[in-house]
Amino acid sequence: MDAKTLISDLAKAAKTAQSVLGKSDHAMRQAALTMSAQHIRQSQSEILAANAIDVAAGKARGLTDAFIDRLTLTPDRIESMANGLEAISALPDPLGAELARWQVPSGLDIARVATALGVIGIIYESRPNVTVDAAGLCIKSGNAAILRGGSDSFHTSRLLAKLMQTGLAEAGLPEDAVAMVSTSDRDAVGAMLQAVGQIDVIIPRGGKGLVGRVQDEARVPVFAHLEGICHLYLAPGADIAKATKVIVNAKMRRTGICGAAETLLIDKSMTNHLAGIAEALQQAGCHLRGDAEACALVSGMEQAEEADWSTEYLDSILSVRIIDDFEAAIDHIRTYGSGHTEAILTEDVALMDRFFAEVDSAIVIANASTQFADGGEFGLGAEIGIATGKLHARGPVGAAQLTSFKYVVRGDGTTRP
Amino acid sequence: MDAKTLISDLAKAAKTAQSVLGKSDHAMRQAALTMSAQHIRQSQSEILAANAIDVAAGKARGLTDAFIDRLTLTPDRIESMANGLEAISALPDPLGAELARWQVPSGLDIARVATALGVIGIIYESRPNVTVDAAGLCIKSGNAAILRGGSDSFHTSRLLAKLMQTGLAEAGLPEDAVAMVSTSDRDAVGAMLQAVGQIDVIIPRGGKGLVGRVQDEARVPVFAHLEGICHLYLAPGADIAKATKVIVNAKMRRTGICGAAETLLIDKSMTNHLAGIAEALQQAGCHLRGDAEACALVSGMEQAEEADWSTEYLDSILSVRIIDDFEAAIDHIRTYGSGHTEAILTEDVALMDRFFAEVDSAIVIANASTQFADGGEFGLGAEIGIATGKLHARGPVGAAQLTSFKYVVRGDGTTRP
Repeated sequence: MDAKTLISDLAKAAKTAQSVLGKSDHAMRQAALTMSAQHIRQSQSEILAANAIDVAAGKARGLTDAFIDRLTLTPDRIESMANGLEAISALPDPLGAELARWQVPSGLDIARVATALGVIGIIYESRPNVTVDAAGLCIKSGNAAILRGGSDSFHTSRLLAKLMQTGLAEAGLPEDAVAMVSTSDRDAVGAMLQAVGQIDVIIPRGGKGLVGRVQDEARVPVFAHLEGICHLYLAPGADIAKATKVIVNAKMRRTGICGAAETLLIDKSMTNHLAGIAEALQQAGCHLRGDAEACALVSGMEQAEEADWSTEYLDSILSVRIIDDFEAAIDHIRTYGSGHTEAILTEDVALMDRFFAEVDSAIVIANASTQFADGGEFGLGAEIGIATGKLHARGPVGAAQLTSFKYVVRGDGTTRP
Repeated sequence: MDAKTLISDLAKAAKTAQSVLGKSDHAMRQAALTMSAQHIRQSQSEILAANAIDVAAGKARGLTDAFIDRLTLTPDRIESMANGLEAISALPDPLGAELARWQVPSGLDIARVATALGVIGIIYESRPNVTVDAAGLCIKSGNAAILRGGSDSFHTSRLLAKLMQTGLAEAGLPEDAVAMVSTSDRDAVGAMLQAVGQIDVIIPRGGKGLVGRVQDEARVPVFAHLEGICHLYLAPGADIAKATKVIVNAKMRRTGICGAAETLLIDKSMTNHLAGIAEALQQAGCHLRGDAEACALVSGMEQAEEADWSTEYLDSILSVRIIDDFEAAIDHIRTYGSGHTEAILTEDVALMDRFFAEVDSAIVIANASTQFADGGEFGLGAEIGIATGKLHARGPVGAAQLTSFKYVVRGDGTTRP
């Protein structure tokens, strides 16, 4: 069967399943999630065995240590997937909520009601937990999931998807609401990206190569973020003790996540504080790359190149630039930012408000770490990623962001004049 | 200059203008709208002269009477455009509204705040008023508009766009926020559809040919509806007097709008009422095309063909089908509907609620005419169309639907553990 037919068949089955899932009671979707969690716990040894096959193959193929780490499951990681499903189950039902309701002069009563989106395609790389997180969020929000994981984690992901299907079936819901695309078909990703009218939205999870390809080739709408080039702006009126703590946390807490800061902009009026902040960063193990002016003020700072301003290091490296004023900070962020998360450090409320108004990123922060850019920290529950597009979902994409809405209109024999 | 460069240059200028417009005070955007309205009123004779050129050229080219009617402006239609802008001006500001605000345990204060979308491309056909409506809604919502009207209305639309630009300039806002693409460049539409990263969303306004082309070719996200194949379902428990009024109104009030009903589904248990309803429709001038069972019950009803169930007549024709039960009605709508608007006629609240839950269209109605599918009737103010997609905007697209949002996060030196 060619890839197009394969995806088309899967999508048709998924759509039929979704029409049942999308109108099912919350209790049934919750049961599917908690039963899947139980099966994942009970199948720990099978999951570890399947994972061992993937890991051995990956090592034989010479995958990097970081890659093997992302691929490898442990009893703790398995428990954490099961916990994640239970946490998703405990969230409020995103479906059926009346988002707004009003009456109009014609006598009609109009409500905007949350509905499922439909069929969601998830294309990801080596992390097997994406299988469970993504399928869990889709089940919660009444959407069918078509999963296409990386070939490196195929044995693990296939088993995890099967356990989710078992949970669905035991809850009385259609198994086809979670489908796993075999990685043996290399054209399947392309077919998913072209499946207009069959897949409602594609969510890529992975590195820049994967996300870039999906954004370039997809005809289906995409929720994605390509990069998190997050900025910190040390502005006039900053409390330096607070700011220093926030800067170190934003860069160094975890350097490999998309909410980690990559560039520190220092307002010219604040340069006398640079040496102290740089020392705190260096003590935490951070390498600094600055413009000429910054380098003159900090020992051990490398000279930054133009490319540094648009680099997502995902590492213990921070670029540092001294800028003339607020406008220059906004300009820098507009030029080099990726629309993900930016933070201003200042006690000046007027400046803070201007920053909130003028920076057009998904998340704008005052006096807190950019590493809070996370659905859990936002109180949205689990997330499938941070969207940097401006349509539909922006910022953390959790179950509520995987919904659409419809208008429900009640009349009483009402005709339009 | 090639089309790609032309659109790229226009889009860059539009983006720069939008960054000013998007953060401007509501009073300034209101001033731009009311001043544009004044200019349109004051320029009535110039507008009529420009329109006369387009109309004469259209007649010479042998355009249909219906086409010439859509193209032709009159003093009344000009006044109505000016009134429309004033009505848009009077709507509440869609920007800056706090859509939600909450605190999380880490101490952060998180708000979701409405923002402009960015640069909106509008591709339309002969109606010159789309120039004014679309530009007006974009200005209101802080978005730049790149307008590409049909060549048949070019002289009229170009003048109208210029009057909008004058209004912007007088309000102290950048003129480039409204741009008109010359129709002499035939590749411009293609270039707009491919302008990923430069145009944030495309809205096509026009017939099936235009909208279909845009949906097929666009790489930029699209808010569109292709067809309004709207259904009426005469269900068990209907109040026949009310239902008959609603059915006649839904079909015959105006047959050429997308919210006009195209198919009447009669529940088998309600067939004894068909003759009376058919008579009311026929008296109103409606031609009926029914399945064999319906034809046997109604004199003067033509036999429907399979193609009738998926035809948007936009005319005084209604297809009529007798279906077995509620499930068959849902199935018919799922198979032949276009996801626009469907209505159930019943006093049975449980059945009504099932219809609301199970029909996945932008608008679902009980006991009221499908012709209420309109932003004005919904109390949303002017609209640029009815979106049948499920992402971002669904149903009537007014100023509030042309916005995105961002998260504004306030901390106090808050770091993530």
